[in-house]
Amino acid sequence: MEGSRLKAPQLIAFDADDTLWLNEPIYTDTQNKFNTIIRPFLTSGSPDEILYQTEMKNLKIFGYGIKGFILSMIETAIEISDGKISSRDIGSIINLGKEMINHPVLILDGVRETLTDLSQRYKLMIITKGDLFDQESKIARSGLVDKFSYIEIVTRKDSDIYSAILKKYKVIANQFLMIGNSLKSDILPVCDLGGHAVHIPYDTTWQHEEVDVQAIKQPYHVLENISHLPEYLENYFDSPIG
Amino acid sequence: MEGSRLKAPQLIAFDADDTLWLNEPIYTDTQNKFNTIIRPFLTSGSPDEILYQTEMKNLKIFGYGIKGFILSMIETAIEISDGKISSRDIGSIINLGKEMINHPVLILDGVRETLTDLSQRYKLMIITKGDLFDQESKIARSGLVDKFSYIEIVTRKDSDIYSAILKKYKVIANQFLMIGNSLKSDILPVCDLGGHAVHIPYDTTWQHEEVDVQAIKQPYHVLENISHLPEYLENYFDSPIG
Repeated sequence: MEGSRLKAPQLIAFDADDTLWLNEPIYTDTQNKFNTIIRPFLTSGSPDEILYQTEMKNLKIFGYGIKGFILSMIETAIEISDGKISSRDIGSIINLGKEMINHPVLILDGVRETLTDLSQRYKLMIITKGDLFDQESKIARSGLVDKFSYIEIVTRKDSDIYSAILKKYKVIANQFLMIGNSLKSDILPVCDLGGHAVHIPYDTTWQHEEVDVQAIKQPYHVLENISHLPEYLENYFDSPIG
Repeated sequence: MEGSRLKAPQLIAFDADDTLWLNEPIYTDTQNKFNTIIRPFLTSGSPDEILYQTEMKNLKIFGYGIKGFILSMIETAIEISDGKISSRDIGSIINLGKEMINHPVLILDGVRETLTDLSQRYKLMIITKGDLFDQESKIARSGLVDKFSYIEIVTRKDSDIYSAILKKYKVIANQFLMIGNSLKSDILPVCDLGGHAVHIPYDTTWQHEEVDVQAIKQPYHVLENISHLPEYLENYFDSPIG
């Protein structure tokens, strides 16, 4: 058995939103409140698809994050209402966005204990995508910052970005382990580089992060909860010491 | 003379906005267009002060950058018009913001030549404050990226941030040189740490970046143009080789 084990990871990196703390439900909740504001102007159907299309169109201008989401909500409201929505309602949409930014950071089940355990044996890292200011604020408020040796906040998560991070920290791909809830951002690009990846699915996934699992050629593991991570490491990898 | 020289800098860092490329005039120009949109609702005075107060209030929620500026312009428009501005006008304000984001990166006089020269003898770095997505986009579009060994995009520029950067790159303060147009962000905090700083004033400075020069206890140099930097280095520092 010993001989078939993998080399211990030099670095274990975690996604943050919906891997360490709750995120997507805050967007969903805001979107519901947004729908209530624009409902009087809706002639038919749901505004969700128009909002999503606006977000996708704006992604290359605004990038990921809440500020871009607020601006996309405003544009959607103007479009759906054909310019009839009041600027007071626009003000309410901005306030919804501010509530999102100020939302308490809710750490997911098992995260704190698992990070405390693993940080004693491994170098841990956060690799999170999104708005620098917002992500830094959440990391600071999470109370988890002392578990991590390194933090990388990036504008996108593709294999070029992961490759640059591995180079920067002088880690070889097959001794790198990435943990996250997004197949598209956390699993696929890491597997493409020959790294290890563990998928911890979250209840809800943003439409944009959905990917065809068939696209992932390398094997990856799925764990139900982050607390199973130490057992997974013990079963498949050499001990980090010696 | 040789004995009185300073040790050659291990790292020379440059601010980006209004040090390497034009920035503040893009804000000023947008603000003028914004004023035209809200002029019909103005009973007296200039909207600039209300906008500035809104920006300052929002800084701790949105951080620096264009997206937060757009949201502050919208809030200001709603406030000044007492909710009477149309959502179409709000849409025009968002478009002003998008034009800012897509504005060509205009490299300032002497920058390209000076960086080409210095990058052959020194490790150069960018330390810029603001929105990650926007700053990365400007750096990529500047065509200057190959002149720099390192790039740091930060949410604020105080002595804690500079101290963390020096630690990260294992550079001692008195062998660090920072170049920038903002006394508050580029000069004061670096001088506080015992580092070297060169101020290259730009025509216009954002009100928020203004500082009492008396607050700067350490000496710093002022250069009229970045192209005087090689001569300054030659006059005051040891040669980087040997």
